[in-house]
Amino acid sequence: MQEFKKAVIEANLEVRELISQNSHDFLCREISVGFGGDLSMNIDILAEKIFIKYLSKFGNIFSEECGFIDNNSDYSITIDPIDGSSNFSSNFPYFGTSVALKRADSILFAIVVNLSNGDIFAKDRFSFKKANLDNLAFKDVEVNHNSKIGIFERSYCSNTIFEKLKTKNIKHRSPGAIALSLAYAHEVDFVAYEGVMRDFDIEAGLFMCEELFISKKSDILLISKDKETFDKMSQLF
Amino acid sequence: MQEFKKAVIEANLEVRELISQNSHDFLCREISVGFGGDLSMNIDILAEKIFIKYLSKFGNIFSEECGFIDNNSDYSITIDPIDGSSNFSSNFPYFGTSVALKRADSILFAIVVNLSNGDIFAKDRFSFKKANLDNLAFKDVEVNHNSKIGIFERSYCSNTIFEKLKTKNIKHRSPGAIALSLAYAHEVDFVAYEGVMRDFDIEAGLFMCEELFISKKSDILLISKDKETFDKMSQLF
Repeated sequence: MQEFKKAVIEANLEVRELISQNSHDFLCREISVGFGGDLSMNIDILAEKIFIKYLSKFGNIFSEECGFIDNNSDYSITIDPIDGSSNFSSNFPYFGTSVALKRADSILFAIVVNLSNGDIFAKDRFSFKKANLDNLAFKDVEVNHNSKIGIFERSYCSNTIFEKLKTKNIKHRSPGAIALSLAYAHEVDFVAYEGVMRDFDIEAGLFMCEELFISKKSDILLISKDKETFDKMSQLF
Repeated sequence: MQEFKKAVIEANLEVRELISQNSHDFLCREISVGFGGDLSMNIDILAEKIFIKYLSKFGNIFSEECGFIDNNSDYSITIDPIDGSSNFSSNFPYFGTSVALKRADSILFAIVVNLSNGDIFAKDRFSFKKANLDNLAFKDVEVNHNSKIGIFERSYCSNTIFEKLKTKNIKHRSPGAIALSLAYAHEVDFVAYEGVMRDFDIEAGLFMCEELFISKKSDILLISKDKETFDKMSQLF
């Protein structure tokens, strides 16, 4: 597991290098990939290649651009090479990467990195730790008792929750990178999400919230470190 | 002006040091200050002290905690020692500092720093440049043509704009630090703000948007780098 963690961190350092060594225009250029002909940005494709290079030896790979790569292993690795691509192209400092290692259907290990400030969140089944790409001294993630805001992802296309939060004057931010926001769930009042959820986007992040209060119903996800906040908001939704 | 800029950067480096050297609990502790008896966090008070120490020699000081300090000068300096205090206490990585230097009523120089990732934005009447606390090689800020999102500050208490943006499917983020968000206005589709605006909070940031399209009416502020986006949104509001 230590070796896997090391490889993920090395991949992230190389992605950060990729970003600093290339022009933003080049990294944001969109090209057509795969059979679907969907448009992807160079950053998405190049970051994915870096992850595949570092992680293929640990298992099969599942990622957005490449689909499934069968490396004939019992283990599989879900990658979101750039979480918050639109933030990246807008130079809005909240984007990162997300990796989950699974055996059968259970997650063994997940790492989410905020590439804007270097924050690393790493969780296995026994511990949840954080560090920084520039300082790899990992410390236990603890619940933050000073929080004053929640995170409400995709608030801009909310159908029901936005109004409900407003009636109760509940203060929230909407930064636009779901795996990252889930990794910060121990720090903030709550994390809520309204919209279609792809396993892909939330798997690693959700694993990090295992010990928190979680409710996931159709297209609404609610997570809180605090029972009182969780109950109040569950009733509201 | 170079000396003033250097002093502001040194103050920011000391604030960053303050944050890394003290426990988050201590920095978030609230104490009563001033005659009003309002509660302020240690971080707000200590960061303000650092700015006063570095900047008093350049002019009178106007800041939230201390009010006005008359240094018997023709110049005055408006400081927001921590922009996005609630984000800071929630370990949500979007907070910073904002400083504006004025003579009479016109701003001569402004610096906004994102303490979460080190981004520095510095503008005088002739140029607008960016750098990082870890790499002080300043480059011209140029308009980003790859943006895919806007920023809508205080969306959580929006009375009118939120619904309007939704009807047009306009993608936005709401990160919660207004001076910072204004400093990023050249990067994103637009910056909008709904609510009471204190000079204090927006002075330095607005100065950075001088060359963009700006509309400020009662409690709604709209800024965009792009004429088409600006016109479309102006009509909408």
